[in-house]
Amino acid sequence: MADIKTFGNAQIPIYIQISQDLREMIFNGHYQEGDKIPTEDEIVMKYGVSRMTARNAVTELVNEGLVYRVHGKGVFVTRTKLQRSLNKITGFHEDMIQIGLNPSSKVLKFEKRPPTEKECHKLNIRKMNQVFEMKRVRYIDEVPYGFQELIVPEYLVPDLGSLDLEKESLYSHLKEINKPIKNAEQRMEAVINNEVAEKLGISKNIPFFFFDRTSYLEDGRPVELLHSFFRGDKFSYTINLSD
Amino acid sequence: MADIKTFGNAQIPIYIQISQDLREMIFNGHYQEGDKIPTEDEIVMKYGVSRMTARNAVTELVNEGLVYRVHGKGVFVTRTKLQRSLNKITGFHEDMIQIGLNPSSKVLKFEKRPPTEKECHKLNIRKMNQVFEMKRVRYIDEVPYGFQELIVPEYLVPDLGSLDLEKESLYSHLKEINKPIKNAEQRMEAVINNEVAEKLGISKNIPFFFFDRTSYLEDGRPVELLHSFFRGDKFSYTINLSD
Repeated sequence: MADIKTFGNAQIPIYIQISQDLREMIFNGHYQEGDKIPTEDEIVMKYGVSRMTARNAVTELVNEGLVYRVHGKGVFVTRTKLQRSLNKITGFHEDMIQIGLNPSSKVLKFEKRPPTEKECHKLNIRKMNQVFEMKRVRYIDEVPYGFQELIVPEYLVPDLGSLDLEKESLYSHLKEINKPIKNAEQRMEAVINNEVAEKLGISKNIPFFFFDRTSYLEDGRPVELLHSFFRGDKFSYTINLSD
Repeated sequence: MADIKTFGNAQIPIYIQISQDLREMIFNGHYQEGDKIPTEDEIVMKYGVSRMTARNAVTELVNEGLVYRVHGKGVFVTRTKLQRSLNKITGFHEDMIQIGLNPSSKVLKFEKRPPTEKECHKLNIRKMNQVFEMKRVRYIDEVPYGFQELIVPEYLVPDLGSLDLEKESLYSHLKEINKPIKNAEQRMEAVINNEVAEKLGISKNIPFFFFDRTSYLEDGRPVELLHSFFRGDKFSYTINLSD
């Protein structure tokens, strides 16, 4: 492994790259809760780095609460669920890239059609307007993690159809066309959903987080209606609350 | 029904009282999703109020998104899950009182004991300190809605044992003793938990929201470690996000 690899426009320090490798092995099930991860000595040997670099890589994961150190015994896995923050408005794609994972999508449906009455009301558009409807399965390293149904009004993102929605992020695209999402209302449920489980090819007993989100531009115009199902066995969500 | 009934220290307008009655019938399953609730005429007859009062009562529920009006057809139930906000730090007891429901608790365990190593770390206390540990089932109108495990350091709330924790709110008590909760970190999961389902006497297939919360006083001292399981078939959570 080179000392530095190029990643987007940024160069990533090697201790971060190693922490990403370890994190991925925790989230893909290679290490389970309570398992011991490689020692600093083993990291030094495997990656050919200094002991300080190995230590920094592990400290990254300790700071995230993913692993904990037991003096004289080693470093152990605390949790194996991906953690996403509810304090930020972010999309699946950018969140996963951020922590060094490899997200992708499969588009099950993409069409332009007239809005329903409910969509007219929620998106503040008229019946003569058109909306894009999209259904996507979201993957990390080919493992299905979630399912999303998205409605976007055509007049705000007319070129949505030309975006490669299997690889690109809607939220990044909105930033690029100078229409970043400013705020959102979101409702969360914990549900069992046989139909979604079947789409993902997973057991029907796995609970989902269900999110019903409406997102707005800076000028208050609604830009998306998003229904998301994310696997409860794969994700947890954090929030900082203040009075 | 009298025009005004006394409720705590406040007098509640009659249209609010009627909306509380209707809300309770939605949440206790008397009305299901899609069901028609009483017409304004029926409310006028039943409660002996003016048409304006009946209309205002229904408008309350429309504004909450609990029901919707269909012109010429009536008013129909949108959702039957209780909605709580994630933007505020509140407790179960006060949230339920707020929407006119009748919360109660059953204490399954209450003890004072030395803290574990993890509790020392999270609560920033020493091994010589003591903590209160409490387990409660939370009810609304005798129906079990959730289960909570609470750890509170004795030095911050020495009189916790004298509180009637089957009826009173910890969060209100903290305000009364001038130690209101200022902020909190919370992790959420969507889980199946047979043990908790058994404690509540409900089906093992009902998913729970699991919350792992650490709450802090204004001066930064941690005042509670709270593990909550709330029924996914009874609750949804809303959050307003901004960039």
